[in-house]
Amino acid sequence: MRTLTGDRALAADLGRIVGPGHVEVRPAALVPYRTDATFGFSGLPTAVVRPGSTREVSQILAWASAHSVPVVPRGAGSSLAAGAVPVRGGIVLALTRMNRILAVDPVDLIAVVEPGVSTSDLAAAVQEHGLHYPPDPGSRRVSTLGGNVATNAGGLHGLKYGNTGGYVLGVQAVLPDGETIRAGGRLLKDVAGYDLVRLLTGSEGTLAVLTELTLALRPAPAASATGLAYFPDLESASDAVRGVIAAGILPATLEFLDRRCIRAVEEYARLGLDVTAGALLLFGDDGSPQEVDRTLREMAAVMPEHGATSVQLATAAAESEALLAARRCALPALARQGGATMLEDVGVPRSRLPELVRRIDAVAEAHRVTIATFGHAGDGNTHPTACFDPADRAERERVHAAFAEVFRAAIDLDGTITGEHGVGAAKLAHLPAQLGAAQTALQARIKRAFDPAGILNPGKAVTA
Amino acid sequence: MRTLTGDRALAADLGRIVGPGHVEVRPAALVPYRTDATFGFSGLPTAVVRPGSTREVSQILAWASAHSVPVVPRGAGSSLAAGAVPVRGGIVLALTRMNRILAVDPVDLIAVVEPGVSTSDLAAAVQEHGLHYPPDPGSRRVSTLGGNVATNAGGLHGLKYGNTGGYVLGVQAVLPDGETIRAGGRLLKDVAGYDLVRLLTGSEGTLAVLTELTLALRPAPAASATGLAYFPDLESASDAVRGVIAAGILPATLEFLDRRCIRAVEEYARLGLDVTAGALLLFGDDGSPQEVDRTLREMAAVMPEHGATSVQLATAAAESEALLAARRCALPALARQGGATMLEDVGVPRSRLPELVRRIDAVAEAHRVTIATFGHAGDGNTHPTACFDPADRAERERVHAAFAEVFRAAIDLDGTITGEHGVGAAKLAHLPAQLGAAQTALQARIKRAFDPAGILNPGKAVTA
Repeated sequence: MRTLTGDRALAADLGRIVGPGHVEVRPAALVPYRTDATFGFSGLPTAVVRPGSTREVSQILAWASAHSVPVVPRGAGSSLAAGAVPVRGGIVLALTRMNRILAVDPVDLIAVVEPGVSTSDLAAAVQEHGLHYPPDPGSRRVSTLGGNVATNAGGLHGLKYGNTGGYVLGVQAVLPDGETIRAGGRLLKDVAGYDLVRLLTGSEGTLAVLTELTLALRPAPAASATGLAYFPDLESASDAVRGVIAAGILPATLEFLDRRCIRAVEEYARLGLDVTAGALLLFGDDGSPQEVDRTLREMAAVMPEHGATSVQLATAAAESEALLAARRCALPALARQGGATMLEDVGVPRSRLPELVRRIDAVAEAHRVTIATFGHAGDGNTHPTACFDPADRAERERVHAAFAEVFRAAIDLDGTITGEHGVGAAKLAHLPAQLGAAQTALQARIKRAFDPAGILNPGKAVTA
Repeated sequence: MRTLTGDRALAADLGRIVGPGHVEVRPAALVPYRTDATFGFSGLPTAVVRPGSTREVSQILAWASAHSVPVVPRGAGSSLAAGAVPVRGGIVLALTRMNRILAVDPVDLIAVVEPGVSTSDLAAAVQEHGLHYPPDPGSRRVSTLGGNVATNAGGLHGLKYGNTGGYVLGVQAVLPDGETIRAGGRLLKDVAGYDLVRLLTGSEGTLAVLTELTLALRPAPAASATGLAYFPDLESASDAVRGVIAAGILPATLEFLDRRCIRAVEEYARLGLDVTAGALLLFGDDGSPQEVDRTLREMAAVMPEHGATSVQLATAAAESEALLAARRCALPALARQGGATMLEDVGVPRSRLPELVRRIDAVAEAHRVTIATFGHAGDGNTHPTACFDPADRAERERVHAAFAEVFRAAIDLDGTITGEHGVGAAKLAHLPAQLGAAQTALQARIKRAFDPAGILNPGKAVTA
């Protein structure tokens, strides 16, 4: 990488592209861009630049290519895998000014958005048209759609509705040399050329910068409802999940909390949870009122057959939200336990979830660390979360050692080291163990096909 | 490409890998492998080889790489885009012996299959477990799952259920040099590394050979039903489709036939269709009996609001199949008109379907060719089908000229030259007009990242 001729020259170059008000090089202004939501990762950017259009993104990338300067695309900075941390310096490309909803089309059932629109802003905007954008990552109030697409974000409703990737029909993307391409569009079926829409989805800003997204919508469901069941342990809760699926139901919500999470949430939010329970299962569905009523009653009937000690049903929206709050506040509740948290997202096939959680618990005990686990019982994606004292170096190291074992356990169980957060910088060292040598080399060749100079988000997602 | 030292040496080399009974070099035995289901394309293979395992596929590709011999993967040979034609010679790799269903798992809701399993065989096998494999390409009785995945095949239920790609969770694939990789698996959420599962899906055998597929299943719907409505023209039928979507319904089936197709089907199958109608819309849904009853009644009520002259509902399975037969036999009916048929699959956003069909009709008239159009009203993917005398060279040329204009019209209308059949050799010349120069070059770089020597299915899908 070329040494820059100085911050002022750089600021002048970039200021000519985006306007001087949208470039920052002052150290104090760069502080928020050194980190994201991941514990223990930081970098030192040379500048942050906030483009307002695809054309400006194109000019910035052409400039960065010409000067061999790394470019780190960033939305809300809510990555839990250090995906937005400038680990090798360079320019942080903050896409938050590009936050317009360009179209909501109720005939084609699509929205066209810039990458800086927040997930919940889009959800609210389409709701006004009687439409529904199903992906619902935990961070939806802050996260941007650009970030959701870049990580193929999951969320609470993956079993019924799939992940973000299933809703990305088209993208406009700027390649590292500044060339702009469009792939896909307002089409449910399009097989012309390799599927770049899906290749770019989940590529974590390492192949191209997404500047416009065409997203699929659905008619808004007329009703939704949620239930909650307590179990003596996670095995019986997992059996109940199998029971739901065996009954022919793929519900919108099937989430679990383990014993530690239940206690943390109750301490934090005083929801009246049963802190003596070994596990809690949230189940819910949406659709026509009749259909929701039917599936909720069927699921409620399945729970006791598998050992549920108590079942509650909520049909009013407010009651439903109160039950879902138990799940939504799991992370803040654990974060409030004092100290720092590291939240992971290992996933396994649904059938192996109890085994994964048993192994997580055993690893935590062996390494003398506290790991609470919650997550998506329906799709097998879990969030083991370590709570620890960030000032205690030995404990930090035990947490890292424990998670390295958790990653190996997930791979052993035909699972993944990351179900929905992405690899980022945080899990890059663990990726080859999952992919194997041949695939790791192939992924690096794909990276070079897009970004031969390696300027886009270096040190993330791919072993280049 | 190296000149082979002779058929016998080649047969001996390949016979050592697969056994001498599974290699053919005799000209008469190669005849069926010169063509697929596409009019006007043929090639001259040197050999056909039928591997029985991933290991044998790996050894064949390693051999072909060492000898710079093209390899053309082939399933049932039902491609409508000349995807399986050995246009540059080489070895046809027939995957039909690899036809085992390796697992059907009702807890993880997946099937694991070899690529040579036919689509309808899998559908039948999972039905015995109370499960459902939704992708339903028109060719499902003959087409193989390997071919479905290689083309990201669509089908009749794309609006509600999506395309084949939405069901591919994992693949085992052999790279051109013989290396074997596994990507994805039994996981609904997995974002570790670039999404090779989705990149290989739809790559038409040009990047790797798929040797094992992990496919998502769903609980079987308890009921299904179909309705049929006649309209004076396609505009009013399209308005009715908008009406269904505005009513908040995404049904399993929304198919149309134009006037010419209605007549051809009636002549062919004597179903009692109203041959005076300008367009016919088939609508259907599946799910719980109550839900199906509700959506069918709602859709039936929407039709007359948009000009339907008559509506029929079928609830018994046999009646439903009888109505669907009108759609399923559109292609054989047109083929029976005498002469040859060329079936295309241009798609546009749903809102632009009437405009596309108007332009197709105008192009047909201007070029004095007969084009009948049917297809997927719900997802905007259409099948304009030319019926012509294959011996009449001038007419053949008019058909080609007309389709070239149809492709341009689709691109003009923000559509695609291929919604579900693939590019193959048949549409390769038209691909750059859709993708643009920068993306065309990028796709070629991706091809080289997988297949630097260009041995895999050369002359297809990508301008290498």
